[in-house]
Amino acid sequence: MPRFPSLDALRAACTDLPAGDETAAGAVAERQMQLTKPPGSLGRLETLAAWLARWQGRPMPRLDQVDVLIFAGNHGVTDQGVSAFPASVTAQMVLNFKTGGAAINQLSDTAGASLTVIPLDLDTPTADFTITSAMDDAAFLAAVSTGYEAVSAEADLVCLGEMGIGNTTVAAALAAALFGGDGEHWAGRGTGVDDEGLARKRAAIDKALDRHADILADPLLAAHALGGRELAAMFGAALAARHHAIPVLLDGFVSTAAAAPLARLCDGGLDHALVAHKSAEAGHWRLAEALGKRPLLDLDMRLGEGSGAAVAVPVLQAAVACHAGMATFAEAGVDDKD
Amino acid sequence: MPRFPSLDALRAACTDLPAGDETAAGAVAERQMQLTKPPGSLGRLETLAAWLARWQGRPMPRLDQVDVLIFAGNHGVTDQGVSAFPASVTAQMVLNFKTGGAAINQLSDTAGASLTVIPLDLDTPTADFTITSAMDDAAFLAAVSTGYEAVSAEADLVCLGEMGIGNTTVAAALAAALFGGDGEHWAGRGTGVDDEGLARKRAAIDKALDRHADILADPLLAAHALGGRELAAMFGAALAARHHAIPVLLDGFVSTAAAAPLARLCDGGLDHALVAHKSAEAGHWRLAEALGKRPLLDLDMRLGEGSGAAVAVPVLQAAVACHAGMATFAEAGVDDKD
Repeated sequence: MPRFPSLDALRAACTDLPAGDETAAGAVAERQMQLTKPPGSLGRLETLAAWLARWQGRPMPRLDQVDVLIFAGNHGVTDQGVSAFPASVTAQMVLNFKTGGAAINQLSDTAGASLTVIPLDLDTPTADFTITSAMDDAAFLAAVSTGYEAVSAEADLVCLGEMGIGNTTVAAALAAALFGGDGEHWAGRGTGVDDEGLARKRAAIDKALDRHADILADPLLAAHALGGRELAAMFGAALAARHHAIPVLLDGFVSTAAAAPLARLCDGGLDHALVAHKSAEAGHWRLAEALGKRPLLDLDMRLGEGSGAAVAVPVLQAAVACHAGMATFAEAGVDDKD
Repeated sequence: MPRFPSLDALRAACTDLPAGDETAAGAVAERQMQLTKPPGSLGRLETLAAWLARWQGRPMPRLDQVDVLIFAGNHGVTDQGVSAFPASVTAQMVLNFKTGGAAINQLSDTAGASLTVIPLDLDTPTADFTITSAMDDAAFLAAVSTGYEAVSAEADLVCLGEMGIGNTTVAAALAAALFGGDGEHWAGRGTGVDDEGLARKRAAIDKALDRHADILADPLLAAHALGGRELAAMFGAALAARHHAIPVLLDGFVSTAAAAPLARLCDGGLDHALVAHKSAEAGHWRLAEALGKRPLLDLDMRLGEGSGAAVAVPVLQAAVACHAGMATFAEAGVDDKD
């Protein structure tokens, strides 16, 4: 039996989420005022330390165990000619992850993070959502449950990434379902589709929004009809992280869209998650803005795989190192402000 | 005898600078097209790898030795009440650097960089440049030479930072001399000066620009009359890095202003340097724009000490790791674009 045997059980788990630890966050803010620097001069490094403390529930945040989780899935909507790459690439890239040749392998190593790759039924793509629901209840709940169980309660930070040819089309459709707007508003070139491909992509999204119009108001049903297995798994992982008091770094368009239903199901439901970078995919900026999140980095990246999240990990490590390691004015014998 | 015994000798060293290695940069761009990712999808990580190759003069860039150099100086212009902190803090913070309690200590450690702190005659502040030249020829050339000699030819990357109470006033005056504009345009709150202090700061800059109006068109004379020892040293270090084929990460307003004369003395004179972050000090954005440089990070930092540069080092490490470690499409057996 999967972790969530029914949509009702999953829905119940997505409401009444644990709040952040404001005492821990307050302790960070207080210590920051005593460290040998002008108040506020470390900018986001200061607020990041407080954010980590709030969602880890400890006044001295740590990043001893950083887990990068990559979920992979295949998508029936690729039948509509929405991607620049053939669907065969999903499984080939999973193999590349396992043999260490992908960007995320290098980036995880650089960040001192451990990488886990979880392929989800690659031989059975989801259904083409321009025709029918991408998944049935069982497939959706299985994927959410797999993502949930993939999160180790010992992690100090979880980075969520993905691989799935066609999944920026899926992300755009899901974003449209959650926040309004159409294919033209949300879809970009993904891995580099040409003008004709982009037109097909936008048309496929509009067709799907029309076909599933009656369930779009329900974030869970939207994730189920317009999502994909790797998106459902990232949703489950983001939920598990909240339950286990683990902050989350979202990556680009697909991972942010995957987690977004949690913000629609519960007020503040994604407060434990940051958007690691601003993808070059325009839909991602719009989605981050809709979620009220300011990305940490802006490096024109648009690869997915958790790559943007992994590049942002050292920024959090810098925040933690300064918070834990700096001397106070009193300890260092430095005069405070005039 | 200092490295540069005369202004003429220094001026000669600042012209006819070595060009970048376009063959190495081209080899990076070619390899990037073969790596297992959509072309361009690593965004700035790809262009950073090429930039490192160009200025290191090797097709496979490396970051085995990253040196953070912090220069410290004191400034006579603090007599004008331009800073929120007393001048005594400069020496106290140098001690804090040496005992490991400052932000830059934690950030250098996090980045795997080695930190060297070089105080420059802290007991002898420069003259108040609202009244006379900040330095005489000998003091200026000694500081430039010290900075030049501080760069190890073995380094793969040099990060330039500073400590000096009052030095955002100095940076603003120097930026105004080099690029036009007045105290209001260039001066911000620095470490957190109040409204009255900000007014004094702007007035001091305007007074200095007026007093030294006859030499402002000469970047070297401007650096000498309106600069400071730590700025002169950073200028010397940026020059040495160019001569030794070492790329440079500039930090915030002060280190960018310090290096800026090189761009005015020689076309492309700062092409081997990047601005690591966009400081919360508004003058810094304006200066980066005047230099045609897009900062790598934007984290609302405004501490100095090389802190923004050190936080950006892992982004370069990520670029190098992806470039060196990723498999090609052929190696990984991944299908290329349709």
